Amino acid sequence: MNRQTFELLILGSSAATPTSERNPSSQLLNIAERSFLIDCGESTQIQLRRFKAKFQSIDHIFISHMHGDHFFGLPGLLSSMHLLGRKQKLRIYCPKELKDIIDLINKVSDTHLNYSIEWIFTNGNGLNLLFEDSKVQVYSFPLMHRILCTGFLFKEKPLPKNIDKQKLEEHGISVADILLLKAGKDVHDENGNTIKNSELTIEPPPPRSYAYCSDTIFNEDIVQYVKNVDLLYHESTFLEDNAERAKKTFHSTARQAAEIARQARAGKLLLGHFSVRYGELEQFVNEAREVFNNCEICQDGKKISV
Amino acid sequence: MNRQTFELLILGSSAATPTSERNPSSQLLNIAERSFLIDCGESTQIQLRRFKAKFQSIDHIFISHMHGDHFFGLPGLLSSMHLLGRKQKLRIYCPKELKDIIDLINKVSDTHLNYSIEWIFTNGNGLNLLFEDSKVQVYSFPLMHRILCTGFLFKEKPLPKNIDKQKLEEHGISVADILLLKAGKDVHDENGNTIKNSELTIEPPPPRSYAYCSDTIFNEDIVQYVKNVDLLYHESTFLEDNAERAKKTFHSTARQAAEIARQARAGKLLLGHFSVRYGELEQFVNEAREVFNNCEICQDGKKISV
Repeated sequence: MNRQTFELLILGSSAATPTSERNPSSQLLNIAERSFLIDCGESTQIQLRRFKAKFQSIDHIFISHMHGDHFFGLPGLLSSMHLLGRKQKLRIYCPKELKDIIDLINKVSDTHLNYSIEWIFTNGNGLNLLFEDSKVQVYSFPLMHRILCTGFLFKEKPLPKNIDKQKLEEHGISVADILLLKAGKDVHDENGNTIKNSELTIEPPPPRSYAYCSDTIFNEDIVQYVKNVDLLYHESTFLEDNAERAKKTFHSTARQAAEIARQARAGKLLLGHFSVRYGELEQFVNEAREVFNNCEICQDGKKISV
Repeated sequence: MNRQTFELLILGSSAATPTSERNPSSQLLNIAERSFLIDCGESTQIQLRRFKAKFQSIDHIFISHMHGDHFFGLPGLLSSMHLLGRKQKLRIYCPKELKDIIDLINKVSDTHLNYSIEWIFTNGNGLNLLFEDSKVQVYSFPLMHRILCTGFLFKEKPLPKNIDKQKLEEHGISVADILLLKAGKDVHDENGNTIKNSELTIEPPPPRSYAYCSDTIFNEDIVQYVKNVDLLYHESTFLEDNAERAKKTFHSTARQAAEIARQARAGKLLLGHFSVRYGELEQFVNEAREVFNNCEICQDGKKISV
């Protein structure tokens, strides 16, 4: 059975200072042909081009917090969207200060975008539904960093039950009853016999989910928000050799990220936001695997299907 | 004779929207081991790394105007300079609005730079001396664009006369007279005879100059400021096929850039800021050469010695 798309593209995996191989934080998530951009470090528009992602199909941008390595690429992306003819509305979910910056930039450059931006401001209070349509829900939840910072949780909505067409014919069930079946009801055959829903339907695959935890100190309060996610991105700026530094700068180590994944019973852990001091990234996986086995590292251009 | 360095490195050559081969405007000029960054489009810090230029040695940044493709890389560069341990003062020459943007960004991200910035604000009134030391002078001059925009003129200071040591000995001139000779004075030999300055000195090579004309409509008023420069960068966003569009958007064509170079009797013309609509850049050179022969195009990573 073909499932709808649920794929993550890594656009940047570095911490605050980019390197020649790694851009600052940004990810593009595609769920059922909805394109969600998550954080937008400098050069994100160039990474989108480089990895052949269509940036005009991005209708939703989520910015976790106001440190530059998570948003310095946004002014340029907004400008290019404008110059390349965008008309459709863009929604940006972010701390309210980001709007002040974009407004000021547009004012001093005398720029008038040809499309509208709807701003949805995040806050640090529990789980907040930011966006919902027929297929997807997106929530923010608090992280603990030096300034206001939120994670984002992306959830597929439950799919309707699949109808077993062969059994439908065998029982002579009318097509009009399909909606009842999809809603989980039992139906009747031509002779008035009740046919149980479960006999005529196939359970859809369980909805999938992805949680993005950008910059945060090790904080077990996160676990409640990311419980049972299929894929968990958790920053690991440092290794345990810099655990003190991690704590002081409100960042995490690979082992701490793994501990959150373990407690949350995540399906898989994705590590990223690596400090420029580390050359060999395999160390991050090795350290994390001592606590949580199913993990991998972000690399610019990597695609991960959920 | 080894002359002091006077070399330009192209970091970006595209107009407003970057492409996979061309970044937005930025150039690094090295005169006598002074590093001047001219404009700072998005990803400039990544280009500096890519082309192995030491960005901590940049002490002067010149921003021509407040369109994003000329400054969106500045916040990230300032941040990386800070994170990588910069202590020495940085001078930024720019429209005053840029300080407002940087101040706001630093405020909302709770960033406190470890080095100080001295802001020198540009204006559109004639030729203004922005910086001067023992070797170099830098001036701004007005361009005509949709918002306040200035060009920059970089001039070597005249070098002192070189002393012809052999002749000095032949005439038995004392070492103490060297300063007089360097200042252009005549001196006396042991017998009290006057020896003409020109007999004992060699004229230094003439001082070199570079003028940077970023975004501007074709405007012959520029000529007075860039007269006789050795190298003239003049934007050529369009070719003549889009002359109307150039005028409307306050940009220039390659032919118009060449006309400024011809009138200014520049040594060489450098074309850049190419609209993304043009694939084959050889067209720009061909069009310009109909008016001014000695020209070449900017390419990211290209070095040009003056």
